[in-house]
Amino acid sequence: MTTPQANLPLPIGIITISDRAYRGEYEDKGGPGIIAALSELLETPWQPVAIIVPDEQELIENALIDLADHKQCSLILTTGGTGPAIRDITPEATEAVCQKMMPGFGELMRIASLKEVPTAILSRQTAGIRGQSLIINLPGKPSAIRTCLDAVFAAIPYCLDLIGGYRIETNPTFCKSFRPKS
Amino acid sequence: MTTPQANLPLPIGIITISDRAYRGEYEDKGGPGIIAALSELLETPWQPVAIIVPDEQELIENALIDLADHKQCSLILTTGGTGPAIRDITPEATEAVCQKMMPGFGELMRIASLKEVPTAILSRQTAGIRGQSLIINLPGKPSAIRTCLDAVFAAIPYCLDLIGGYRIETNPTFCKSFRPKS
Amino acid sequence: MTTPQANLPLPIGIITISDRAYRGEYEDKGGPGIIAALSELLETPWQPVAIIVPDEQELIENALIDLADHKQCSLILTTGGTGPAIRDITPEATEAVCQKMMPGFGELMRIASLKEVPTAILSRQTAGIRGQSLIINLPGKPSAIRTCLDAVFAAIPYCLDLIGGYRIETNPTFCKSFRPKS
Repeated sequence: MTTPQANLPLPIGIITISDRAYRGEYEDKGGPGIIAALSELLETPWQPVAIIVPDEQELIENALIDLADHKQCSLILTTGGTGPAIRDITPEATEAVCQKMMPGFGELMRIASLKEVPTAILSRQTAGIRGQSLIINLPGKPSAIRTCLDAVFAAIPYCLDLIGGYRIETNPTFCKSFRPKS
Repeated sequence: MTTPQANLPLPIGIITISDRAYRGEYEDKGGPGIIAALSELLETPWQPVAIIVPDEQELIENALIDLADHKQCSLILTTGGTGPAIRDITPEATEAVCQKMMPGFGELMRIASLKEVPTAILSRQTAGIRGQSLIINLPGKPSAIRTCLDAVFAAIPYCLDLIGGYRIETNPTFCKSFRPKS
Repeated sequence: MTTPQANLPLPIGIITISDRAYRGEYEDKGGPGIIAALSELLETPWQPVAIIVPDEQELIENALIDLADHKQCSLILTTGGTGPAIRDITPEATEAVCQKMMPGFGELMRIASLKEVPTAILSRQTAGIRGQSLIINLPGKPSAIRTCLDAVFAAIPYCLDLIGGYRIETNPTFCKSFRPKS
């Protein structure tokens, strides 16, 4: 992975996965929800590299691969497609392109979401590592996106350090990130 | 899946998985434990479609497939065979017949059971989707069955909606189910 | 598995997985950390069967197989190699040699570690059964090792009973183990 130029904002991949949003029948609320959350959580300058894809496994995989391998996105967040319905295929696409799965992210995001709705257990969201990129599945609804990001964000900067991704700093007003002393 | 006739009670699959219960050396307590729990949790009229099978992966898979594909059971509950012993093979049989796994069910059922016994982590119980059916593994003991069903039942009606299964209503005295506004 | 002689201390496998410790560039703290914890947690006489291997999947698998199949270790604990970095491959090696995975161990160890550091979700530690042996992945740092063992140890004696391993008793000052009445 080429390191982004030092004076440019870091690219963060944001993939909205929704048949209806892709066809324009439905306004994408997940992508803007992620952007709004990151605007508070991150102190390091960043820019979204956003794309909307339908619930098709091959298209989701292609988008993940492009952002990880060609667009220098050490952090890639998806929204949508994690439920039990037949078209919900985001976790399978994520697993297919990752070398390592990170079960702790999905577990903790479900525990955090359960405090809000009992249907949180229906989310199959997961996370994994592809090369020097961390991919995290988020729910479709903006309020649920924020709950999930708040639950796991403190661990993301150190995770990116460990996989050789770019260095990010969080905004301590919204998230106290943690880097253990080695 | 053919929708059950409107005036008939909904069929719910109940599979007791136990070598000893199958051979008649041991009274099946898991199946009756599930029936007793559902009698309180469900308001919608229902009827059990119950079967006892030994701890043989192929026989468990056949029973799951029959209840899901031919017996119109949108909800299938198993009891037994989720531990670490060599004959405990229920989770593997479940995964083999499901198109999608639902990790949140097992995670939450273990967390709930841990409040009662520290050996709850030895349960490998899981859940998954086959077609328009939700399959959930439950423990063998009636008290543990109830703990697990109480933990996850509020999410089951909406899950069945999402996969195109039959519509069920819970008895609010025992379980407040939750259907998010779409 | 041959049962160890009744008058000999039970062998417990301890594998330190670290490129730097293997090359002698780094003092192994994980292995001694496990030994210190077990010295308090166990009442049954035991002896460590300890080995240091680099982060190479085949070498980790060979060490696990040797301890399980030839060294009579019904309990095998690993330390290190569970993170997201490219060389961290311990969970994959563990899964490759196990017939059954035990997801409840990793889930609970992450929940317990989260009370100490938010980066606990980065640990991919898991557990599984090979034959009559229980294999559990632990973190690399001694303080995290103890947190994880304290979280799950009460369930280990009964797990070993269920898989036909040796019988161990815990020291009730440090751990109240639990064996359900069958």
